[in-house]
Amino acid sequence: MQVGGVSQRSIQLAADGWAVEIVDQTRLPFAFERRRLERAADAAEAIRAMRVRGAPLIGATAAYGLCLQARRDASDAALFAARSELLATRPTAVNLRWALDAMRDALAGIPVRERSARAYARAAALCDEDVARNRAIGAHGLPLLEAVAARKRGGSVNVLTHCNAGWLATVDYGTALAPVYLAHDRGLPVHVWVDETRPRNQGAALTCWELLEHGVPHTLIADNAGGHLMQRGSVDLCLVGSDRTTARGDVCNKIGTYLKALAAHDNGVPFYVALPSSTLDWTLRDAEIPIEERDADELKSAFGRADDGRMLRVSLLPDAVRAANPGFDVTPARLVSGLITERGLCEASAEGLARLFPEQGS
Amino acid sequence: MQVGGVSQRSIQLAADGWAVEIVDQTRLPFAFERRRLERAADAAEAIRAMRVRGAPLIGATAAYGLCLQARRDASDAALFAARSELLATRPTAVNLRWALDAMRDALAGIPVRERSARAYARAAALCDEDVARNRAIGAHGLPLLEAVAARKRGGSVNVLTHCNAGWLATVDYGTALAPVYLAHDRGLPVHVWVDETRPRNQGAALTCWELLEHGVPHTLIADNAGGHLMQRGSVDLCLVGSDRTTARGDVCNKIGTYLKALAAHDNGVPFYVALPSSTLDWTLRDAEIPIEERDADELKSAFGRADDGRMLRVSLLPDAVRAANPGFDVTPARLVSGLITERGLCEASAEGLARLFPEQGS
Repeated sequence: MQVGGVSQRSIQLAADGWAVEIVDQTRLPFAFERRRLERAADAAEAIRAMRVRGAPLIGATAAYGLCLQARRDASDAALFAARSELLATRPTAVNLRWALDAMRDALAGIPVRERSARAYARAAALCDEDVARNRAIGAHGLPLLEAVAARKRGGSVNVLTHCNAGWLATVDYGTALAPVYLAHDRGLPVHVWVDETRPRNQGAALTCWELLEHGVPHTLIADNAGGHLMQRGSVDLCLVGSDRTTARGDVCNKIGTYLKALAAHDNGVPFYVALPSSTLDWTLRDAEIPIEERDADELKSAFGRADDGRMLRVSLLPDAVRAANPGFDVTPARLVSGLITERGLCEASAEGLARLFPEQGS
Repeated sequence: MQVGGVSQRSIQLAADGWAVEIVDQTRLPFAFERRRLERAADAAEAIRAMRVRGAPLIGATAAYGLCLQARRDASDAALFAARSELLATRPTAVNLRWALDAMRDALAGIPVRERSARAYARAAALCDEDVARNRAIGAHGLPLLEAVAARKRGGSVNVLTHCNAGWLATVDYGTALAPVYLAHDRGLPVHVWVDETRPRNQGAALTCWELLEHGVPHTLIADNAGGHLMQRGSVDLCLVGSDRTTARGDVCNKIGTYLKALAAHDNGVPFYVALPSSTLDWTLRDAEIPIEERDADELKSAFGRADDGRMLRVSLLPDAVRAANPGFDVTPARLVSGLITERGLCEASAEGLARLFPEQGS
C-alpha cells in the first residue's frame, strides 16, 4: 500500500537480497521506520515485541525467520531450534504454526546446502500468496459495501472495525480493510469507525495511520462507543479480522471483538469477519482456543509524544494496581453474519466452511 | 470513606465555614488534593473540567455553587445567572437539574438577606440525604452479593463495574460500590473487575484508587475484556451506576455500559444498576436522553507520570486524526436485571419503578 506516495509491503527483503525488513509497528503512528532482521532470533523478537503483529504477518515473519537461520546453519538441529523459538513467540495466531509447517514441508528431504535458497523461495511465495488471498478477500467483500451504497443512494458507507486488520497486519492489502480499500479506490464513499483497541491501541495507532496515508475517511472512537453508534444507526456494517477461526465458525480475534458482535446482533447490523484460510484451524471443533494473557503493564502505561517532541512512556497508575490483560476473545459463530475468505463468502458454520473448503472434510 | 486512614467526603465546607472543598479528581490516582471553591464560577469550572464528576456529586457541587453565589449577591438576577451557568456545565446528568431545582424551591419566597444561610442549610441537607441514600443502596444491594457468596461457599464474589460509581461519584459511599464496601466491611470475600473506562480512565484512576485505599481486592481490565471474562465464568455480577434513568427503566450511564449489559445478558450474568432516585428522570418515557459529545482530545492524549517523576500529558496520535467521543450510552431496560435504589430493589420497568415510587404515578 501507499506511504507518502511510495508502495510498501509490511515485510520485504533488504536491498542485499537476504536480510529481512519489517515496518517497526511499535514506532507508528509517529514514525514510519523499517527495521532490519538478520537472525531467526531477530524475527522472534520482532513478533514477541509486537513490532510485527496480525496473524498473516506473524506467519510471514516466522517463515523469513527460518530463512535467516537456514542461511547461517541449515542443519536439522539448527532449524528445529529456530522453529521452536519462533513457535513460542505468540500462542494464539494459528498461522504462525501454519507458516512454519509450510516451511518444514518445503525443506523436507532437501540437502542441507540447498535449504537456504529453497527456504527463501518458499517464504517469498508465502508472502505473494498472502497478497493474492487478501486481494481476493477484497473482491469478495466489495459487493457487501456496494449493496449498502446502493441502498443509501450515495450516502457514506459506515464500516466499524476493531484492532488492525489492514495491510500492516498482513503482507499487503489487509483482510478486513481489503474490501474498504478496494471500495475507496473505486470511488465508493466509505467512512470507517476505528475502535481504539485498548490496551495496545492498534486501532488508533495503526488503522488510523493506514487510512490517513491512503486517504480513506475515518473517525477514531473509544472501544466503549461502538454499541452506542450502532444504536443510533451510525454503523452500516462491521468488518473485522481473525487470529484463528474454528472449523465451525467461531472467531478468535482481538479482545473486545465479541462485545461489538453482540451490539451488531442487538441492532441488526451485519457483522462480517474477513480471513485468509490460513487462519482457519480445522483441528479445533469443540476445544477451547488458547487465549494469550499479555503483560499487565500494557494497561498501566502509555507511549506518546510530549510537548517538547520527545517520545516517552508515562505511567497511568500507581504501581500497586493489579491488572489482567487477556489478548483475545472468541465470538461465537451465531453472532457472525458471514465469513469473507479468499474463496468467497460463507456462513459462519461447519457446513458453510465445508462447502467452501471441501478438501478439509472429514 | 477512608483515605490514608482519615475519613473524607468528596465535597465539604472548608474550615472557614463558607468556602467549599472538593477532591480534585483530575489529580488522582497520583495525588489526593483538595481544591477550594469560592465562587459559583469555580463550581461550574470544577464540573466542566471534571474535577468532580458522577451524577450525585455534580448535583451537590452545583448546589454549593449556588450557595457561593448567594453569599456574594443573593438577588434574583444573580442567582438566576449562576443557575444558568451551572446548568450548562454538563448535559446528561439529570440530578444537576434536580439539585438546582431543590435549591430554587428552598429559596422561593425567602428574603434576599436570608437566602445565603438558607442555601447553605439546604446544600448541606442535600449532601446528607445523598449519603443516607447511598447507605440504603448499599444495604439493599448487599443481599445480592451475600447470595453469590452463599452459593460459592466462601469463594470470592466477582463483581464487574464500569466507570466510577464509588464514593468519589457521590458525597460518600457511592452507588454501585456501596454494596461492595458494605460486603467487604462485613467480611465477605469480594473481588472487583474494574473497567478502565476510556477515554478518561475513571475506572483505572478513580475506582482502582478508591478500592486500593479501602483495601478491597480488585483487578483493572481493559474495557474490551469484560465479555471474555463473562464467557469464562469469571464474573458473578455486574454492578454499575447511572447518570440518568428513565421512568421505564432505560439506563443512561458512561459510554460502554451497554456493551457490558449485552455480554451479561448473553452469559446469564446478573446486571444490576444502583441509583439514587435523584437520577430518575420521570419526564423521559419515550424521548431520547441527550448524550454529551465530549472533546475528541480526550482520546488523543494521556496524562501520566514520566520516569523522572514529572506529571505530563503525552499525545498518542498525530494531530490529523479525527475522533468522536460520545460520553454516555443507554442500556435498554430489557438488559437490566434490576435497579437498586434507596427504597429497595425493583424491576427495570415502568411497573417496577411505579411500585417503588408510587408518588410519581401519573
